[in-house]
Amino acid sequence: MAGPRKYLLPEERIPERWYNIQAHMPNPALPPLHPATREPIGPEALEPLFPQALIEQEVTREEWVEIPEAVREIYKLWRPTPLYRARNLEKALDTPAKIFYKYEGVSPAGSHKPNTAVPQAYYNAQAGVKRITTETGAGQWGSALALACKMMGLGCEVYMVRISFDQKPYRKLMMQTWGAEVIPSPSNRTAAGRQILAADPDSPGSLGIAISEAVERAAADEATKYSLGSVLNHVLLHQTVIGQEAVEQMEMAGERPDVVIAPFGGGSNFAGLAFPFLRQNLTQGTDIRCLAMEPASCPKLTRGEFRYDFGDTIGMTPLLPMYTLGHNFVPAKIHAGGLRYHGAGVLVSQLLKDKLIDAEAVDQLETFQAGVLFAQTEGIIPAPEANHAVAGAVKQARQAREEGRARTILFNLCGHGHFDMAAYEAYFGGRLERHELTEAEIARSLAGLDAPKV
Amino acid sequence: MAGPRKYLLPEERIPERWYNIQAHMPNPALPPLHPATREPIGPEALEPLFPQALIEQEVTREEWVEIPEAVREIYKLWRPTPLYRARNLEKALDTPAKIFYKYEGVSPAGSHKPNTAVPQAYYNAQAGVKRITTETGAGQWGSALALACKMMGLGCEVYMVRISFDQKPYRKLMMQTWGAEVIPSPSNRTAAGRQILAADPDSPGSLGIAISEAVERAAADEATKYSLGSVLNHVLLHQTVIGQEAVEQMEMAGERPDVVIAPFGGGSNFAGLAFPFLRQNLTQGTDIRCLAMEPASCPKLTRGEFRYDFGDTIGMTPLLPMYTLGHNFVPAKIHAGGLRYHGAGVLVSQLLKDKLIDAEAVDQLETFQAGVLFAQTEGIIPAPEANHAVAGAVKQARQAREEGRARTILFNLCGHGHFDMAAYEAYFGGRLERHELTEAEIARSLAGLDAPKV
Repeated sequence: MAGPRKYLLPEERIPERWYNIQAHMPNPALPPLHPATREPIGPEALEPLFPQALIEQEVTREEWVEIPEAVREIYKLWRPTPLYRARNLEKALDTPAKIFYKYEGVSPAGSHKPNTAVPQAYYNAQAGVKRITTETGAGQWGSALALACKMMGLGCEVYMVRISFDQKPYRKLMMQTWGAEVIPSPSNRTAAGRQILAADPDSPGSLGIAISEAVERAAADEATKYSLGSVLNHVLLHQTVIGQEAVEQMEMAGERPDVVIAPFGGGSNFAGLAFPFLRQNLTQGTDIRCLAMEPASCPKLTRGEFRYDFGDTIGMTPLLPMYTLGHNFVPAKIHAGGLRYHGAGVLVSQLLKDKLIDAEAVDQLETFQAGVLFAQTEGIIPAPEANHAVAGAVKQARQAREEGRARTILFNLCGHGHFDMAAYEAYFGGRLERHELTEAEIARSLAGLDAPKV
Repeated sequence: MAGPRKYLLPEERIPERWYNIQAHMPNPALPPLHPATREPIGPEALEPLFPQALIEQEVTREEWVEIPEAVREIYKLWRPTPLYRARNLEKALDTPAKIFYKYEGVSPAGSHKPNTAVPQAYYNAQAGVKRITTETGAGQWGSALALACKMMGLGCEVYMVRISFDQKPYRKLMMQTWGAEVIPSPSNRTAAGRQILAADPDSPGSLGIAISEAVERAAADEATKYSLGSVLNHVLLHQTVIGQEAVEQMEMAGERPDVVIAPFGGGSNFAGLAFPFLRQNLTQGTDIRCLAMEPASCPKLTRGEFRYDFGDTIGMTPLLPMYTLGHNFVPAKIHAGGLRYHGAGVLVSQLLKDKLIDAEAVDQLETFQAGVLFAQTEGIIPAPEANHAVAGAVKQARQAREEGRARTILFNLCGHGHFDMAAYEAYFGGRLERHELTEAEIARSLAGLDAPKV
């Protein structure tokens, strides 16, 4: 026997509480600013969009937030997720490193996103909300929210960027199977959509437009709220079930990671795995490196600026203190659609500023090379987003080999690639491009910002 | 707490042996006949196509066959698979029945097929074979074999029906990601393919043509063998890991099934779940009903004839004693591509003849209604094939409700539908047709047969 490959927990071990990093941050995050007055604003500014319970989670400094029983019941449909030792990958890399990965692709939606979609739907239902709106690009977040709304008996209205709606019919069908209404954006349902369509009836849409439509619908109707799949503090909080399970599973394996790696889009998947390990650093004096892997084409953590900026591209949201490439940044059309956001969540940004976490950028060509090696050794075909973490782990394992020393690596395989095979087609067809930004491009994107630097 | 939803086994509990129903069948299966002489033939007739170890498994009467350690190592990538209690579905049906399902969609290929693909690749590699050929229609079997060959270091050549090759690029890409060569069939690589192309350069292909191409390639080269994903005894044998785990997991749940349900194509997925329970009937006197669910459009078990017939549509294989609609049967283009085979495996046919198992036919419209209900309650979107088992379970649960009595139901959710969302599109678009055969159609399909009845 080569030894165990999987570390499974029984469903009684689904965490009973979410871990809140705000309890242990040496420097708390700066407050958001009003988009017009630029004065600090409180959480009540979020009330038109979110139910009270989620707003409280946004600002609480309590270390633990109890997970409602009804949420844990739905988590049981796929949680706890397995932790794997990637023995075949280790062998292929001929490395002294031990490589572990946490696999979130076992959720019905195929990614980590339902970890927050389910509690968001739950708290909305508790508050008497009847319908949730959101936007989706590639469809991963929309799928998760559609599933969650169906489980909690809520309506779900997903504004899907029209070009994705047309080009990715399978994701759309997945949402429809779970009962969601999927609307190609721009649409005639909103003033924002009608305005765009009047100017260009064939508009392919954009995530920015879809956000505007979803937010407009939520703000206009008492019984309708809006939901976000990353960036916000409560979203990161919900994802910590990943890392809490992983801490326990690494103990089962008798190992402690030297480095914990996750893909980075807005921060929720990274925070989900890393924060419970970061807790050990902050409270028990361990020295576990927490490494966010971002695309070279959207390098806000490694090459962006830490300053106040809008969360959306239109400039409607509060100003948030974060690493950003500027809200006007137009990302290259890489296949990891979930990692193309211009900014980073506030909590993760402050932690990076304080050097408590690390970040690296990687080109998409390298991520697919790593992803195919992973598929050919471990079997699972990763999502393009997840390939960023695989690439990080492969790089660490090769370093360990060159240095001839042991290293224990843990990464987040945040989803499978079953709905992203067109990206693999581009890879095998030699059509994947490199997308490294020039200094001039970054400077140009940051140039227009006038909100305070921090 | 509503109580447990999942029953998980640690990987040490992956079965160490496959269960061979031939040890306990009251009437052994009749021998195959030579296609020309119609005399009984021995297993040596299979030598050009299969390695010796698999041929021995085809005919052995030993109760248990040891699973090689190298195969169990690869099984660990996804096995043991979870057993679920479908509590949300029970609630939606308001039934006193308890519904359990075994979920095989957690394999990297998304179905139960790798359970046999991996040992087949292993025994071929042990015998010095360098490359395996096979055919695939929708792509589920081709994906499983591609994965298995990569894990065992073998080349893999998949002849994919051209119309599927063109219409299902994602399955093709999955096979390519695992390193397989996928060839649209008919192709110029074989005499069979060239002959078809000469007559019709735009031929859409068929499973029959693809089989001919794959077999021709294997027969022509010492280092190349052929592989089948269902029907044969050794394939059914390998799948019994499913039922062995399920027996143990039902014991964990403190339940014994009254009825065990699985979709039926050639028999491997049904046998995989049912045979270990049938073993209890045959050796311990239990009375567990084993129920095969077949499509109403391809009802060989419920409306076919038990007689000798060819395994392929061309008439090259030995004649096998089985329930069949006739090897010239042309199935309707239902979405459950894996359930369109004209015949049934020899072992399953004999067991049905001896009334040791049961069968029911169900129309595809009803299967999708059940599948969508399942997705909206339990989360997982089933493959169209798996929907047949869901429909069987739903029917049993409704009966239990009408009769007002408890019943424990176990079914095989043999795969997920991530690569079959076009079928759901047809369902939601109201384009799924009923395909019940008339008596005249069945009589016509059976009329041409001249091999012995049994």
